[in-house]
Amino acid sequence: MTPSKTAPASQASVPPVILELISYDRDTFSKVDGIPADELLTKLQPGKVNWINLDGLNDQDIIEKLQAKFCLHPLLVDDILADQRPKAEEYEDYLFFTLKMLYRIDARRIDYEQINFVLGNDFLVSFQEKEGGDLFDGFRDRIRQDLGKVRKKQADYLLYRLIDIIVDNYYNVLDRIGDIIEEIEEYVYENPTNKTFNRIQDLKKELIYLRKALYPLREALGKLVKGESEFIHEENLMFFSYVYDHFSHLIDSSDTYKDLTSSLMDIHINAMNTRMNEVMKVLTVISTIFMPLTFIVGVYGMNFDYMPELRWPWGYGGVWGIMLLVVVAMLAFFRSKKWF
Amino acid sequence: MTPSKTAPASQASVPPVILELISYDRDTFSKVDGIPADELLTKLQPGKVNWINLDGLNDQDIIEKLQAKFCLHPLLVDDILADQRPKAEEYEDYLFFTLKMLYRIDARRIDYEQINFVLGNDFLVSFQEKEGGDLFDGFRDRIRQDLGKVRKKQADYLLYRLIDIIVDNYYNVLDRIGDIIEEIEEYVYENPTNKTFNRIQDLKKELIYLRKALYPLREALGKLVKGESEFIHEENLMFFSYVYDHFSHLIDSSDTYKDLTSSLMDIHINAMNTRMNEVMKVLTVISTIFMPLTFIVGVYGMNFDYMPELRWPWGYGGVWGIMLLVVVAMLAFFRSKKWF
Amino acid sequence: MTPSKTAPASQASVPPVILELISYDRDTFSKVDGIPADELLTKLQPGKVNWINLDGLNDQDIIEKLQAKFCLHPLLVDDILADQRPKAEEYEDYLFFTLKMLYRIDARRIDYEQINFVLGNDFLVSFQEKEGGDLFDGFRDRIRQDLGKVRKKQADYLLYRLIDIIVDNYYNVLDRIGDIIEEIEEYVYENPTNKTFNRIQDLKKELIYLRKALYPLREALGKLVKGESEFIHEENLMFFSYVYDHFSHLIDSSDTYKDLTSSLMDIHINAMNTRMNEVMKVLTVISTIFMPLTFIVGVYGMNFDYMPELRWPWGYGGVWGIMLLVVVAMLAFFRSKKWF
Amino acid sequence: MTPSKTAPASQASVPPVILELISYDRDTFSKVDGIPADELLTKLQPGKVNWINLDGLNDQDIIEKLQAKFCLHPLLVDDILADQRPKAEEYEDYLFFTLKMLYRIDARRIDYEQINFVLGNDFLVSFQEKEGGDLFDGFRDRIRQDLGKVRKKQADYLLYRLIDIIVDNYYNVLDRIGDIIEEIEEYVYENPTNKTFNRIQDLKKELIYLRKALYPLREALGKLVKGESEFIHEENLMFFSYVYDHFSHLIDSSDTYKDLTSSLMDIHINAMNTRMNEVMKVLTVISTIFMPLTFIVGVYGMNFDYMPELRWPWGYGGVWGIMLLVVVAMLAFFRSKKWF
Amino acid sequence: MTPSKTAPASQASVPPVILELISYDRDTFSKVDGIPADELLTKLQPGKVNWINLDGLNDQDIIEKLQAKFCLHPLLVDDILADQRPKAEEYEDYLFFTLKMLYRIDARRIDYEQINFVLGNDFLVSFQEKEGGDLFDGFRDRIRQDLGKVRKKQADYLLYRLIDIIVDNYYNVLDRIGDIIEEIEEYVYENPTNKTFNRIQDLKKELIYLRKALYPLREALGKLVKGESEFIHEENLMFFSYVYDHFSHLIDSSDTYKDLTSSLMDIHINAMNTRMNEVMKVLTVISTIFMPLTFIVGVYGMNFDYMPELRWPWGYGGVWGIMLLVVVAMLAFFRSKKWF
Repeated sequence: MTPSKTAPASQASVPPVILELISYDRDTFSKVDGIPADELLTKLQPGKVNWINLDGLNDQDIIEKLQAKFCLHPLLVDDILADQRPKAEEYEDYLFFTLKMLYRIDARRIDYEQINFVLGNDFLVSFQEKEGGDLFDGFRDRIRQDLGKVRKKQADYLLYRLIDIIVDNYYNVLDRIGDIIEEIEEYVYENPTNKTFNRIQDLKKELIYLRKALYPLREALGKLVKGESEFIHEENLMFFSYVYDHFSHLIDSSDTYKDLTSSLMDIHINAMNTRMNEVMKVLTVISTIFMPLTFIVGVYGMNFDYMPELRWPWGYGGVWGIMLLVVVAMLAFFRSKKWF
Repeated sequence: MTPSKTAPASQASVPPVILELISYDRDTFSKVDGIPADELLTKLQPGKVNWINLDGLNDQDIIEKLQAKFCLHPLLVDDILADQRPKAEEYEDYLFFTLKMLYRIDARRIDYEQINFVLGNDFLVSFQEKEGGDLFDGFRDRIRQDLGKVRKKQADYLLYRLIDIIVDNYYNVLDRIGDIIEEIEEYVYENPTNKTFNRIQDLKKELIYLRKALYPLREALGKLVKGESEFIHEENLMFFSYVYDHFSHLIDSSDTYKDLTSSLMDIHINAMNTRMNEVMKVLTVISTIFMPLTFIVGVYGMNFDYMPELRWPWGYGGVWGIMLLVVVAMLAFFRSKKWF
Repeated sequence: MTPSKTAPASQASVPPVILELISYDRDTFSKVDGIPADELLTKLQPGKVNWINLDGLNDQDIIEKLQAKFCLHPLLVDDILADQRPKAEEYEDYLFFTLKMLYRIDARRIDYEQINFVLGNDFLVSFQEKEGGDLFDGFRDRIRQDLGKVRKKQADYLLYRLIDIIVDNYYNVLDRIGDIIEEIEEYVYENPTNKTFNRIQDLKKELIYLRKALYPLREALGKLVKGESEFIHEENLMFFSYVYDHFSHLIDSSDTYKDLTSSLMDIHINAMNTRMNEVMKVLTVISTIFMPLTFIVGVYGMNFDYMPELRWPWGYGGVWGIMLLVVVAMLAFFRSKKWF
Repeated sequence: MTPSKTAPASQASVPPVILELISYDRDTFSKVDGIPADELLTKLQPGKVNWINLDGLNDQDIIEKLQAKFCLHPLLVDDILADQRPKAEEYEDYLFFTLKMLYRIDARRIDYEQINFVLGNDFLVSFQEKEGGDLFDGFRDRIRQDLGKVRKKQADYLLYRLIDIIVDNYYNVLDRIGDIIEEIEEYVYENPTNKTFNRIQDLKKELIYLRKALYPLREALGKLVKGESEFIHEENLMFFSYVYDHFSHLIDSSDTYKDLTSSLMDIHINAMNTRMNEVMKVLTVISTIFMPLTFIVGVYGMNFDYMPELRWPWGYGGVWGIMLLVVVAMLAFFRSKKWF
Repeated sequence: MTPSKTAPASQASVPPVILELISYDRDTFSKVDGIPADELLTKLQPGKVNWINLDGLNDQDIIEKLQAKFCLHPLLVDDILADQRPKAEEYEDYLFFTLKMLYRIDARRIDYEQINFVLGNDFLVSFQEKEGGDLFDGFRDRIRQDLGKVRKKQADYLLYRLIDIIVDNYYNVLDRIGDIIEEIEEYVYENPTNKTFNRIQDLKKELIYLRKALYPLREALGKLVKGESEFIHEENLMFFSYVYDHFSHLIDSSDTYKDLTSSLMDIHINAMNTRMNEVMKVLTVISTIFMPLTFIVGVYGMNFDYMPELRWPWGYGGVWGIMLLVVVAMLAFFRSKKWF
């Protein structure tokens, strides 16, 4: 149930690492993959936007070649390979941006994948932890078919679009959390079972992990928006600012959900206590009615030689009458206390 | 019970979208509506204040015409159409301001509607999510009848007045929350029912959602007040500052209500516990009195051949005496414990 | 029990609005009241300090005349008439300062009154919500008798003195809260009654409302202290700084009281739980002792034909012996559990 | 148990106010006391460091003479005489610094004393609330014996040393709190008595008052460290910075102790609940075992004419067998629930 | 269980203090130890990187010689010898950096050791509290064998590497905390024993102490990163920035663990309450079933002369029938309440 950082090494059969190059400008589009890394890197087309995408980080050789080609700083490579806090860092020849992609695996599990971007003047390298299909598939088609304005723009706009896709996914995850909160809310008032409680705790844990991802990412986006990076053109700043605003909205929502979740906890606890109260009341009502009665019948079960009541013909009926009075008095007492 | 973002598409019969243009200056006033969008947009009167109001956002065609006419940025149009965080954003030719209008539907439900403003030098475009009458109806009459000084002022003053109307509505909603808190307070000390608890929870939820709307809006207003926008004349800054102060007061109130609500929760929980304590005391008093008595009568219900007390003529009376002593002792014990 | 904003209009018999003018300098002192507003306003003495004090805000006519005389901005007049957040605002010809005066009505009720000041170069106008005597009565005498240095100083010093009087009153209110906390503390350990709990809740509510008044007021005082206003002479800045420091001390105290109050809540809750525990222990001890005894005597109350013990001469005495053993064993068990 | 501000006036026999003057430089040392204030003030030695120390603030005359001699501002004198928030304030001819000295009186009581310093170019005046011996006694000897470098330094270094002595005393108080926390911790897991709870509450209160003293003092020290005062030589700034760092460490500790104290509360509450659970279990186990047994023996205590079991020779033994079975079944049930 | 500051003086047999000098540059490496301090200090090689490492602080003589050699400020020496808040301080001839190393001793105990660094242009002095082997052993070998680039860099890079080793150790400690949280989580839902509770409390305490070490250390690192120190070359700033980012990640994790720990507390408390509820239900079910039955059999144990039911042949069987009905009714009642 814990958010898992996918460790490629621990997987039974390691899927092949995929390296692909997409080059485009206003008029042309080409895609290269399935060839060795050094060959592929010769096919970069200066003057166009070159998007090199690497799926899977466990081929040391490819990473070294990319490092050599783009003069990546050793610390930056360390950052790419290790679990890293979302951040934006300006280097001399490129801008480094790392963030977490997150998607919901099942009702109780959110998975995190680290994605790293290196943005240069005419290239964008994206490093993804996981092999296999990703969220960007649909977007690759849009580039090829020249939908939207991505073909008319530069590499920084491409970065914006990819970040935007990732942020949209955060929205999906948060919306699902909102739905779960509403679902739980329907049950929690009536039925304070442990299952409900566990779902609330799962939610809480998800939100705790989410916050760990959200706040540093907003900070990193904030750095881009300030316009201090030379790799983001001023005309495109507005797009990053747009993502930043969306992200702030997202954080507001996560704060709201956090408050709602602790409100759900209060409701659960209150429902538990209400139920406890009710159990105690039943116990007390039963005891209070039957203890005096049992005492009374006990009295006339005594074997004293001299107990005049036992000889009275209406003694037995009288005892029943007294007991009836006791019951009525007790019920009146509980009614006055508003116990039912 | 959740604040709902009204989704126009989900409504059974979509009411018609309304587009109207009000143009005025110190001496003249004209209002145009009910004609096609492109015709209406030709009727803008330069030099006067032109207020274009759009009720309902589901006519793609009208929005595109407005976008073309006022050169609205595509991202801005996205912001208008999507659920957006309150914000102020300066563009080259206009200022974009978006906020949430809120009104109470019934005792347990607050509704949110997004309103977007685009303020230019001689025009103000307002985009409202909902079709049908709005909060601005009364104000339109005031303009026509030349009440107040709106006719003597420019478009930014018009924006101030519309924001002021919206903020006043926040006041109404918060005042109603204050009333509800006082109502609940009367019941909660005496009567910790689940109904009371649910009302407190509803309040809490409302305040959680309110805060989500309030804080970003203050931030956005703060941006306007700083006087960095060229579309707000310096002589009118004071009005925005006035709204800003009111809004800060509002946020203080919402904080106060939040604290009062959690204080209500404490009272409710304490009332629950007090009641539990009382139930337990009743149970304990009854048990403590009748258990020894039942034991005593049980003793003399035994059938031993040799039990001398049973033969004593004053045995039965003596047992009653002993039992009376036990009851008195128990009552004294409880009195010393201050249980009643 | 809620802090009430006194609404003049709701009072049965409206006391007359009082307008008075005190003019003084180092050598002269004059006081004018009981004459119509426009006449009174002609009696202002340029070059001296003119203090115009208005008690009661429900005479529209007087306020309009003051507005005309001192060129008060319409928004400022709105602020005076409406419930307003404490604030300081610099206008071209005067400084506007508004704050809440508070005084304790009875043990459970604090009242708030809004006081507004307009400070010019040679005048100070004070607007008070309430008619009738105020906190400034003693101070007026001090001016007349030329006690202290107020007669040697200018209008801004007068403002400082009036604010100081109001802040002193905050001290009184907070000191009383401190006393109440100590009073409650004596009871709460021993006696967790609902009355104690309600007093704690009342305190908590008072502190919640106090904070709403305190923080914005410190902010407003901070603005004055920064020395940006031209209506406060640099030589007098130190006095405002002195009030500001006192006010910070006050806020520290209110924070401390808030923490102490929630500490009282903890003590109350613990006392409740301790008592509950004790009740449960009594119940358990009684049940655990008498249930086995009742069972034993029940055994020998059975009517089987063949029950040899019943025929034994020492049977009855033996049962008493066994029961004694049971009681001793139970008491030893409870002793080992440290239940008493 | 409340921290008490010592009010000299309330003491039965007021000890005499002590005024002393210590003058020193690299080569000379002189100490004057026991003579009238005006005479003493003539003995100040320009060019040397003159430390005037006043123990006890209830001799109005002496204070006035000091005020006259050093041109103390009336507001400053007010600050000295009243309970004041720790602060540093630069005047034209001197620096005013006020703080609280605190020492532990007994296990449940910390006392606060206000100490005020006025630092000039060649003098330091210290005003202490309390008469009688103080924390500085040992340090006076060190000056006389020319230990350390105080004799080689100026008046600001003397101030640093005195503040350092006071801060060291804060350390002692906090260390003692740390010890008490460890002591409590040993008991609280096992033995959730009210005595333990009260000690935790006392600690909490002490920490609440401590924080009220600590934060403004750090703020005041921070002002000195910034190096804006002309009365603190740049070469000595490092010493104040050293005290400031120590003080920050102190505040970290007090935060840690606060967290530990609320952790102790959690442990106490859990221990209470655990004990409650245990009590309830004992009650339930006893009831669950003996209620069915008592019922069974009750059955055979009935007096019906026709009850065949009563006639069976093995009836009595059989009942004992059935009851044994019931007990075994109940114990197995509780074992399966892991109740013991 | 409290984090212990190792006090050398309290150890039975004090291990010898170790002083060693490692000098290296691109081409040479030499290591000197086991000789007297003054002799060793003559062997410093200007122009190379000289790393003087001192293990153990209880040889006053060595420290004085180091102080003399490197002109260490007396306050700095005080800081080295006393328990100190992590900080970075720039002196004229060197940079002082002090932090806490921490390592886990066993499952319930984290130990803290203070390490101080003095960084000059061509030297780095490290003062370690503890004698004996340290975390740097492996790194010394890497220098000798010229692995990595440390031999090609200057003293500030050496400082970075040593800090990095220490920060890595923080990671280990936090990872272990993460593991413990997951371990506890498996138990806490099912089994709210005191042992689980105590482990959660231990965790909480560890995190409280950790935070006390983490925040000031980030602050100190932040000072280095700002690049204001002249002893850190601009080309190496990036390395410190890298450590700083890692450290921020660490703090995020510790915040997350803190939230998770309090979530564990909630789960524990809920499990306790659930169990309590269950115990109460068992008690109530048993009482509610057997109390009426015991009453009924008590009725027919009475000895009245006239009790017609006792004579009826089917009386006994009828009573059993009635009792069966009562049991069925009760079970139906509990079923309707969903108690089992």
